[in-house]
Amino acid sequence: MFETAELGSKIDKKTFKREGPKARAELLEVQRVVAGSGLAPVVIISGGDEYGKVPVLDLLLSWLDARGVESYALSDPTDEERERPRFWRFWRLLPARGKMSILIGSWYSHPVVERAYERLDELEFEREMRRIRDFEVMLAHEGVPVVKLWLHLAKSVHKKRLAKVKRDPRSRWLISEESWTNFKRYDEFRRTAEEAIRLTSGGVAPWHIVESVDDRYRNLTVVTTLTRALQDAVHSDDAHRAKRSGRKAKISLPRARKANLIRQLDLTLALPDNEYEEKLEQYSARLAKLVRQLRDAERSLTLVFEGPDAAGKGGAIRRLTGAMDARLYRVISVAAPTDEEASHPYLWRFWRHLPRRGRVTVYDRSWYGRVLVERIEGLAEREEWKRAYAEINEFEAQLTEFGTIVIKFWLAISPEEQLRRFRDRQTTPYKQYKLTEDDWRNRKKWDGYETAASDMIERTSTDNAPWVLIEAEDKRWTRIQVLRTVCRHVRKALKG
Amino acid sequence: MFETAELGSKIDKKTFKREGPKARAELLEVQRVVAGSGLAPVVIISGGDEYGKVPVLDLLLSWLDARGVESYALSDPTDEERERPRFWRFWRLLPARGKMSILIGSWYSHPVVERAYERLDELEFEREMRRIRDFEVMLAHEGVPVVKLWLHLAKSVHKKRLAKVKRDPRSRWLISEESWTNFKRYDEFRRTAEEAIRLTSGGVAPWHIVESVDDRYRNLTVVTTLTRALQDAVHSDDAHRAKRSGRKAKISLPRARKANLIRQLDLTLALPDNEYEEKLEQYSARLAKLVRQLRDAERSLTLVFEGPDAAGKGGAIRRLTGAMDARLYRVISVAAPTDEEASHPYLWRFWRHLPRRGRVTVYDRSWYGRVLVERIEGLAEREEWKRAYAEINEFEAQLTEFGTIVIKFWLAISPEEQLRRFRDRQTTPYKQYKLTEDDWRNRKKWDGYETAASDMIERTSTDNAPWVLIEAEDKRWTRIQVLRTVCRHVRKALKG
Repeated sequence: MFETAELGSKIDKKTFKREGPKARAELLEVQRVVAGSGLAPVVIISGGDEYGKVPVLDLLLSWLDARGVESYALSDPTDEERERPRFWRFWRLLPARGKMSILIGSWYSHPVVERAYERLDELEFEREMRRIRDFEVMLAHEGVPVVKLWLHLAKSVHKKRLAKVKRDPRSRWLISEESWTNFKRYDEFRRTAEEAIRLTSGGVAPWHIVESVDDRYRNLTVVTTLTRALQDAVHSDDAHRAKRSGRKAKISLPRARKANLIRQLDLTLALPDNEYEEKLEQYSARLAKLVRQLRDAERSLTLVFEGPDAAGKGGAIRRLTGAMDARLYRVISVAAPTDEEASHPYLWRFWRHLPRRGRVTVYDRSWYGRVLVERIEGLAEREEWKRAYAEINEFEAQLTEFGTIVIKFWLAISPEEQLRRFRDRQTTPYKQYKLTEDDWRNRKKWDGYETAASDMIERTSTDNAPWVLIEAEDKRWTRIQVLRTVCRHVRKALKG
Repeated sequence: MFETAELGSKIDKKTFKREGPKARAELLEVQRVVAGSGLAPVVIISGGDEYGKVPVLDLLLSWLDARGVESYALSDPTDEERERPRFWRFWRLLPARGKMSILIGSWYSHPVVERAYERLDELEFEREMRRIRDFEVMLAHEGVPVVKLWLHLAKSVHKKRLAKVKRDPRSRWLISEESWTNFKRYDEFRRTAEEAIRLTSGGVAPWHIVESVDDRYRNLTVVTTLTRALQDAVHSDDAHRAKRSGRKAKISLPRARKANLIRQLDLTLALPDNEYEEKLEQYSARLAKLVRQLRDAERSLTLVFEGPDAAGKGGAIRRLTGAMDARLYRVISVAAPTDEEASHPYLWRFWRHLPRRGRVTVYDRSWYGRVLVERIEGLAEREEWKRAYAEINEFEAQLTEFGTIVIKFWLAISPEEQLRRFRDRQTTPYKQYKLTEDDWRNRKKWDGYETAASDMIERTSTDNAPWVLIEAEDKRWTRIQVLRTVCRHVRKALKG
């Protein structure tokens, strides 16, 4: 979930000078529209980056029209607040229509901290998240969209940041005993945050994860993300009113600045031929054994393959299945739904073919079609693919809770490499059947697919069902990486 | 929650003969519309009445067009089902668009039974309910409305029924060992059912509680309720499409047959003058003491008064507050919201004035305005007051979890008595200010208000925050009943 926020994303001064004013103008404009619409947004600035929240708040307060904004830094409840049910303090700071509240610290803070320190157990934490979700759904219904920003720092960066802030006398006061204590629980906080984000991102109030390592990048990303989220809120509110009044609403939405995870991969990674043969044999033998152990342990394994056309999914899958007992695995190629499938809820076709215990199922394309091809080709409506992230997370949570091991592979290639492979298919007779008109058409939407894939990975990569990105420019490298990853995960799962 | 289903509601043969065919025709008609709409409803027949489910299913299957319906009686999962995550079996039986599935036994059965037998704890049960809610929300989005019918029997009726079925050789086979074991846990099942209904009634898939004591009443109520729910589903689906296409949709909705709780009250109950004085003194003294104990225990008490105009709310409240230390209580009269209140989410004005620990707050009218006056006068949209039941339940759950004791009074009078009191106000100079044009206007919508009140009580009376119905035709009786109820609840809460 945090993969896209651990890339070291930066913006240079020049770019910030150029883009900052534009972003600021857009933010002001959307604030004006919000004020006119009668919405009353609440913006939550949250996350692991303790020292980024205040600067972000400062920036927003200075860029926004101050007459329409109130900000609150919530820490421990006051005596007054302690005398009432816990949510009383949050009700107090809801803005009036046309205004906006910005919060540092929110209804998430207490349960996240308590869970990270194991003072809440898993189920108690889930109850808190359920309560928050109901609260946010109610707010959305009542014209209070909640925009949630999570400022994230990778562990190593966080550590350096702490040290740096401590060295600097101007900022030393920012570091409390608590900062260090919390940092010692970095992993627990990260896990808890992932869980919180997964449980409260569905539907009306999704989380936006922002990498916080570089101030300029963070600030600009926060501003464009907030702008877009507010436009979204106005848009759906307009659509809602349009429904009542029968008129149509349309607002153009700019894209938020977002680091692209896939572009960060080192596609030059490759494996020489001799090494490949040796490792193929080594991992195949290991996998064969592990698959038998899976059967004996009655554990299922579900592997998902996604990636651009000609990324080498089929080849990688064949190397996997080549190592397995044919009675134990099944490869499912997912294409357009059948008539019968189309007449059921989206996930029905995947539930339908769920294997029994102890089996391996390999999906060549999968349920992620909804947030990839269906999103890009307009086969699913915006609201359909938007809610699909949460639905898919819930689907996979049910699989993993049942004991199924879920691993999802994204095979990444460059557009140039794809073109080379397309040409090869064109000229090699036995490969021609693989190349269709669709492939050329999809290729034209490369950037759209890449963005969709990046969003998908951010929102659906979880501890229990992770996305694994494979640099797939070299086929040998790809296949060995896939085999190795599967072996490692399965071995770990069988041990745990 | 089950109050409206413990009235002994019956229908005689003649009425059934007259109304049955009409209800059947309407059901068939809505089935035809559903088929054309591409919706794929799932109907769940659930509840404590084990012997009513099959007859209801039989009736529906014989009244509906059989070509569009499949039915499933779910009991223990099959081997096949056990080999997959638990929801697999439910995905299997989802109907295709235009068809309908009717289930006896559903995704509720397992968690409800497990909870009633305390094999699931409160939090585990809540997680299951959360999962179900997500599932049903997803289904609704995907064109699969879920209509949930709960067949209810009061404990005494249930017991008699068991005995009767056992005596009859034709039905004896229906009774299993399990039936008796389950009946021993009637209270646990009832409590669990209430919790399940509360947690899964919000928004898209509300429960419909049907009293099951009389076959004809039960059957006719099931049919009209189902008809209405399906029409609702078509209606909101149409509205959804209308939003996309810009056209307007309207469908007329007949009312489901529903027993009226309020009409069952015995309004002749009264108290002679001398007895009144004596009891007033007795309970006032008791209450005064209890209120001081509340303060010392730092427990809050929240009392809500609702009822028709001139039902005697003010008088009852004055007898209560007369017994309390003025520093410890506050009476809040709820009228139309202020400008500031109207510009915030609905419940904001009530959160705002929440008292601190150890205080008594008496609401003369309350947050229930949304599902009473705002519903009837069209001040809230249909979707607004429909979701308000769940929002209010959640609000009160937060209060009671915090330790607040919540009691809600409905003072019931007859329209004739109201008229007498209005006239009295007209002719008594010092009472004239109490009578407004609004009162006369509201009076004309008596039936609407009574239905709204009945729905409200059904959906928001919970173990922790119960509705108490008071026969309010006689003012002395009313006041003493209110005092007595408050004393009893507070004493119990302080003990527990």
